[in-house]
Amino acid sequence: MKNLIIGQSGGPTPVINASMCGIITEAFDQSRYIQKVYGMVNGIEGILNHQIIDLDPLKGSGELELIKTTPGSYLGSCRCKLPEDLEDPIYPKLFEELDKLAVGYFFYIGGNDSMDTVSKLSRYALKTGNPIKIMGIPKTIDNDLAGTDHTPGFGSAAKYVASTVRSISIDASVYSSTKSVTIVEIMGRHAGWLTASSILARQSKGDNPMLIYAPESPFSQEAFLEKVERILKTVPNVVICISEGLHDGNTFLCEYAEMAKTDTFGHKMLAGAGKYLENLIKKRLHVKARSIELNVCQRCTPFSLSATDLNEAFSSGVYGVLAALKGETGRMVALSRSPQPGYSIRYKTVDVDTVCNVEKTLPLQWIIKDGSDISDDFIAYVKPLIQGSVELPLEDGLPKFSYRQTLAVPD
Amino acid sequence: MKNLIIGQSGGPTPVINASMCGIITEAFDQSRYIQKVYGMVNGIEGILNHQIIDLDPLKGSGELELIKTTPGSYLGSCRCKLPEDLEDPIYPKLFEELDKLAVGYFFYIGGNDSMDTVSKLSRYALKTGNPIKIMGIPKTIDNDLAGTDHTPGFGSAAKYVASTVRSISIDASVYSSTKSVTIVEIMGRHAGWLTASSILARQSKGDNPMLIYAPESPFSQEAFLEKVERILKTVPNVVICISEGLHDGNTFLCEYAEMAKTDTFGHKMLAGAGKYLENLIKKRLHVKARSIELNVCQRCTPFSLSATDLNEAFSSGVYGVLAALKGETGRMVALSRSPQPGYSIRYKTVDVDTVCNVEKTLPLQWIIKDGSDISDDFIAYVKPLIQGSVELPLEDGLPKFSYRQTLAVPD
Repeated sequence: MKNLIIGQSGGPTPVINASMCGIITEAFDQSRYIQKVYGMVNGIEGILNHQIIDLDPLKGSGELELIKTTPGSYLGSCRCKLPEDLEDPIYPKLFEELDKLAVGYFFYIGGNDSMDTVSKLSRYALKTGNPIKIMGIPKTIDNDLAGTDHTPGFGSAAKYVASTVRSISIDASVYSSTKSVTIVEIMGRHAGWLTASSILARQSKGDNPMLIYAPESPFSQEAFLEKVERILKTVPNVVICISEGLHDGNTFLCEYAEMAKTDTFGHKMLAGAGKYLENLIKKRLHVKARSIELNVCQRCTPFSLSATDLNEAFSSGVYGVLAALKGETGRMVALSRSPQPGYSIRYKTVDVDTVCNVEKTLPLQWIIKDGSDISDDFIAYVKPLIQGSVELPLEDGLPKFSYRQTLAVPD
Repeated sequence: MKNLIIGQSGGPTPVINASMCGIITEAFDQSRYIQKVYGMVNGIEGILNHQIIDLDPLKGSGELELIKTTPGSYLGSCRCKLPEDLEDPIYPKLFEELDKLAVGYFFYIGGNDSMDTVSKLSRYALKTGNPIKIMGIPKTIDNDLAGTDHTPGFGSAAKYVASTVRSISIDASVYSSTKSVTIVEIMGRHAGWLTASSILARQSKGDNPMLIYAPESPFSQEAFLEKVERILKTVPNVVICISEGLHDGNTFLCEYAEMAKTDTFGHKMLAGAGKYLENLIKKRLHVKARSIELNVCQRCTPFSLSATDLNEAFSSGVYGVLAALKGETGRMVALSRSPQPGYSIRYKTVDVDTVCNVEKTLPLQWIIKDGSDISDDFIAYVKPLIQGSVELPLEDGLPKFSYRQTLAVPD
């Protein structure tokens, strides 16, 4: 009987640990086929550094319930890209370690780059006749993975963005006697899914956020200023949501900002696209402007978990274990949405080679009004993904999280 | 029978509307003494601009329940300071408008500057023999009002800061193989109450946030760098919470940052204390650093409402109406904490003149370790204020807010 090992890689999402819990829970249930469950600390780095932990103590402990809603990557993460050349000595070294641990099932939860790891490891295993099953579980707040209707992690991040922008819009409206512009900078350098989700903050047509700019459409500073100026003639407070990755076709806005250098201390003041536009508006339109970077809260705040997202993340893990037990390898679990009315999801697997190194961006037909707004079709797409609340375990008024104990497996 | 009018002023808090709801609810209950309830749009500006709304339609509508958890200032806000000279023509003008509306009870919800307005208006009324009762209801996330144990708004903001820093600390720990510094910049330019609250994020001693800097203690950049360097020798990821108002005794850190000028486009790149320290650490310690500004979310996020805070905000409003009916004027409602074990609050009023233009800062004895940490006494002080959860009304997966209808009172 073989063991199962799990790794997490890339930036966390609010539900990346739910996927891990899904894998662990199903692996425990499949104890006739799976002997032990291991975790690699900091992804494949953990294999190379002998940082492997035994996850079996989680069995029946109730701790899994707590881990499910704990942000961050419970097992730690890495941003390690394996060499293209499968002849590289790192591959036999990795598999030697996995063989020592009698690993028959290898699970990697991550985005594009992590699926690249799944692809390479599974190809190497097939090439060398190693029967290990290598499986990818999708994860990213950016929603930019191909082959799946959406990615676990996106729904909760979209819900955070929408709720927060709705609160910011109310906050921005309190001084209605002074004109003001509020820029909200949202994650997703190349894909505008998360930025587009800010449209859900709009309670009614014509409401804030009045302008939304995704990075798929080239951004014109002059057209932008013109639009803002026109809006300010009719409403006093404008909230604008932008992707951190706005560019004019050649240069990222944040690069313009980064060209700024201090002449006092010689420190380079880095700033994002939001800060750049804030300054542009102050300088050109002479109105009050501020920018707000939603920053890492988008990927780590557990206050706006979508129950739909949390359940799908968990189920992706469960489904992956079942697929691996059926003999699948080199595959990623994917979500398929029923074309029937009402929201329903079916799980499947897709060839990981069709996923890795591909970036799924927001369809251009969902970007409207010269790139300054998002269509109703996107709203229909995203709305089901943010549904359902999750009650967080609390302790002394604050969310209670689970912290990993460093229980290394003896060498 | 006289009418009651309510205004909100200064920056919002997550519970400023709960105080308004407390006043309105009690005023409706006291219909034998109070005829109508009005709201001034954008504080006293609304009186001068004839922007007064009739709040009576809220009676029995269920809308008050929704307004209670809606962020922002329902009535709009202003930052208007009345002239020191009570002979100024603005005073008779204001009271003429109030008399036209038959206002007998004037309520102003706000912080320092708003209490200054309460003071001036009540002194003018006494001087001119106007029997109107003028009452202040405390509000500020900064907790810097004198005469009260704490201010409504602070508890929920402190809870937001603590929860968010706890999530950020988990997020910061996922790449444990790379050293990193995360700076979290927290509101409160002169008072460190909110920054200090980040200590609640620490789940156990020695945990992140490892350093906390309030603005009451002068900040030394060299001592700071030394401390960070020493910590990085033993742990890989450090989270540091700082007040936006850090200064070295002469100059605010953000002013150092603001001295930076761009030489490319001539835009002045404004940045805060957090960004400044991020750059300082990168330059001097050569480690990965990032900064996160919690920004307006501290005062507008309804996801981390403290039930204790929400109830106290509401009760402050209720108590204010009772005090005004008893004939009090020129007073602010204040919270008095019982010295007995267990947390209990008694409401009282204090002379508004002892409150306005005074800034209550964090006691220096609660700032320890050369200004880099906060004492357990503060924890004992703040912990009761964040207790209890509030279930938010949701619609389509997002918090449902109440938007004010512009129902002007006919001239």
